[in-house]
Amino acid sequence: MVERHVPECAFCGISTGLVYEDEQVVAFLDHRPLFPGHVLVAPRAHVETLADLPVAGVGPFFIAVRRVSGAVERAMGAGGTFVAINNKVSQSVPHLHCHVVPRTKGDGLRGFFWPRRRYASEDEMARVAAAIAGEL
Amino acid sequence: MVERHVPECAFCGISTGLVYEDEQVVAFLDHRPLFPGHVLVAPRAHVETLADLPVAGVGPFFIAVRRVSGAVERAMGAGGTFVAINNKVSQSVPHLHCHVVPRTKGDGLRGFFWPRRRYASEDEMARVAAAIAGEL
Repeated sequence: MVERHVPECAFCGISTGLVYEDEQVVAFLDHRPLFPGHVLVAPRAHVETLADLPVAGVGPFFIAVRRVSGAVERAMGAGGTFVAINNKVSQSVPHLHCHVVPRTKGDGLRGFFWPRRRYASEDEMARVAAAIAGEL
Repeated sequence: MVERHVPECAFCGISTGLVYEDEQVVAFLDHRPLFPGHVLVAPRAHVETLADLPVAGVGPFFIAVRRVSGAVERAMGAGGTFVAINNKVSQSVPHLHCHVVPRTKGDGLRGFFWPRRRYASEDEMARVAAAIAGEL
């Protein structure tokens, strides 16, 4: 497969300010971090979303994410990390990238995963589960 | 390697309500979803965080995450997905799990990734980059 590179893409061919690179993956600081040490990990080849990443590239990509996550945590003296991908919605650059953000208890991001809801009924939950299972 | 299972862990040995399972991975609905169709993907073996997942398990785990993400998007008629892991901080169950959440433009989660900051200077940014690169 020939790798695709898009000249106008902000993440294609990025080569300066890298904190990590290997044959398939690069990582660099987000210029507008949630917290200092916020890193973006991206495949070198242009794919837009996780769904577009070929299966053969999934392991190498996330092995790099895992490695970067450990490095960010140690380098920033963090209590943990937040690892996240926006696919299409809220995705600022249409080139797959995984956010690795150092976290500390009480850092104010505790609320980002709220508000949570409940399913209206067990039936509704079962219908949703069946719909997803049906697509798998 | 003998897989570790922790009897008191909420995610070890989970077998009901699964939307997906394979030899290494299970997926099931979060009971308190951000939006209906919010799925958790977890390795069968008990590991606490992404750093604790053996390298050999990274590919199979995220290939399942990728597959579930596509299914959630199609099943819920969503515009995209949010795929995220909390390591230690904000991690409610100390067994690695990846959130797969259906997203729609204007669903109200747009703000979760704010506020963003800026580095005080290029020097500060370079120091942070060097610290992370030094851990890799």
